[in-house]
Amino acid sequence: MDTRITPLVPLDLKSWIARQLDQVELALDRWVSVDAGADLEHHAPADLMAAMRYAVLDGGKRLRPLLVLAACEAVNSGLKHDYLPIEECDDELARRGVIDPEAATQGSGEAALRAACAVELIHAYSLVHDDMPCMDNDVLRRGKPTVHVQFGQASALLAGDALQALAFELLTPEGSAIASAQQAKLCRLLARAAGCAGMAGGQAIDLASVGLQLTEDQLREMHRLKTGALLQASVMMGAVCAEPMSVARAALHRYGAAIGLAFQVVDDILDVTADSSTLGKTAGKDAEHDKPTYVSLMGLDAARAYAQALHRQALQALADTGLVDTRILQGLADMVVQRSN
Amino acid sequence: MDTRITPLVPLDLKSWIARQLDQVELALDRWVSVDAGADLEHHAPADLMAAMRYAVLDGGKRLRPLLVLAACEAVNSGLKHDYLPIEECDDELARRGVIDPEAATQGSGEAALRAACAVELIHAYSLVHDDMPCMDNDVLRRGKPTVHVQFGQASALLAGDALQALAFELLTPEGSAIASAQQAKLCRLLARAAGCAGMAGGQAIDLASVGLQLTEDQLREMHRLKTGALLQASVMMGAVCAEPMSVARAALHRYGAAIGLAFQVVDDILDVTADSSTLGKTAGKDAEHDKPTYVSLMGLDAARAYAQALHRQALQALADTGLVDTRILQGLADMVVQRSN
Repeated sequence: MDTRITPLVPLDLKSWIARQLDQVELALDRWVSVDAGADLEHHAPADLMAAMRYAVLDGGKRLRPLLVLAACEAVNSGLKHDYLPIEECDDELARRGVIDPEAATQGSGEAALRAACAVELIHAYSLVHDDMPCMDNDVLRRGKPTVHVQFGQASALLAGDALQALAFELLTPEGSAIASAQQAKLCRLLARAAGCAGMAGGQAIDLASVGLQLTEDQLREMHRLKTGALLQASVMMGAVCAEPMSVARAALHRYGAAIGLAFQVVDDILDVTADSSTLGKTAGKDAEHDKPTYVSLMGLDAARAYAQALHRQALQALADTGLVDTRILQGLADMVVQRSN
Repeated sequence: MDTRITPLVPLDLKSWIARQLDQVELALDRWVSVDAGADLEHHAPADLMAAMRYAVLDGGKRLRPLLVLAACEAVNSGLKHDYLPIEECDDELARRGVIDPEAATQGSGEAALRAACAVELIHAYSLVHDDMPCMDNDVLRRGKPTVHVQFGQASALLAGDALQALAFELLTPEGSAIASAQQAKLCRLLARAAGCAGMAGGQAIDLASVGLQLTEDQLREMHRLKTGALLQASVMMGAVCAEPMSVARAALHRYGAAIGLAFQVVDDILDVTADSSTLGKTAGKDAEHDKPTYVSLMGLDAARAYAQALHRQALQALADTGLVDTRILQGLADMVVQRSN
């Protein structure tokens, strides 16, 4: 095997993102559709599918899908020559820092695209349910009327439920190139991140904490579950889609945790500094509802400094992976912290 | 291999059911709990878990788990000596009607119990969401206040969402005896049965059909999705938990379809013939809400005759499986049709 170091081709992050977004939008359009049931006996009811498509298509930053695809590419780029991973590593090849590029990319494209879309479906369903009158009662999302405003509450409830199921269906295609072990592992990561010890659990804490004074630890725990778990799962699912699965896992886990929390800190900052038209959703909702945020807890300046510190943690974690090319993950971390909406 | 025919031990269906119910209740109590997250970093928020447990524990006929466990046992009983399966069969051993009992039971116990509980979690979550004010607005379920009455609408919404995620988490345990291929297949079956081309799709049709005159085909399609898909998936998931997976699949599929539809026809009959205290839920709701039912469509006598015909179809399908021992599945089909609540 040739172990000479090949200089990396210069990265154009914007065009990488544009390419991935094209791919993700196309895939979502294909998979969230009545035609997706080609191997099913009957098509899904058209009205329900219309609400599901409205919730998913034509909107959103697609941050989670981008993280899945970027993590998969980073792991596929292999470990740096002579890099000695400091973390646990259950794969012999990876332990020796040797990766077979053929094995690395085989089947990982389809798996990563499915994982990217599955994570986005979970995110989309959570927004639909979150916006309902019994939760945040929001009428504007991504600059459009929310799903329950457009389709009614019952349809919004069902569309969210069906999107969650569809996420797991996307991860378990029959007769595909994706190994069963990968399918099962992807389902496991996504189920945990979405459930009571993840996103749903974080939302429950959120609900219960309105009007309360949380400590920084409690606030971090809430966001670690509510937003962080799914962002972190995106990174880990991308890594699972690459082969061998275990390379750089612990460091990627830290990267995911750091950007997950940074995302929320920046969300809290934007809620007080941006206007509704920039955000595409109602600004100032946190203060209006007396929700605990990083800004209310530590003040605007300290929150900004904290976001920068988390950004540095994320970049350090990427350096610790020992992977050849983590520039896209680095660029996404920059975006998370520097975004204006 | 000894191919002599061993007479079957007489079956005591009641005590079989009692044993399985004990097992299922214990497993649900263990898996739907804050302690279930022993391998997670943090426990689920206690309030959310309380609502989830309220929705799942201490109630319900557990028909779906019983079907999973019964189908697994039936397939594990093997094919009858000299039986030539008429259906597609992708397993060489099964094609020859030979089953290794060791291989048959290895790991199938845990898989079947997890599948049984996962299906019940999906069923339980669907009831929680179905009972909400924006859907059926029901206040009584299994003789208790519904989840949204007891815990509030937001908690009911989240508890349902988290139960769905937990179902898929149950199916994908890390480092267990359950093969990845089984885990992936179980997720696939459950996701399809729960989603827009299954249960959620059927509920959408249900919503849209209030006050409409449906044809018998339309009514059957609605119930095939709304109730039938999950009942049928229960049977198929049980079969997947047994090894080899493919034995008698087509006939079991027909069995599942027949009892799925029979279940709904009997539900429609009970809604007009039983009282609320027997049902454990509000009787007469269908007529009150002007919902199309088999009784409103064909009259009570014809609906009863139809339930009997579906019962016969289910028994014929069991005979077609060629399996040694389908007596439990037969008993469950009897229960579905003869039940009084």
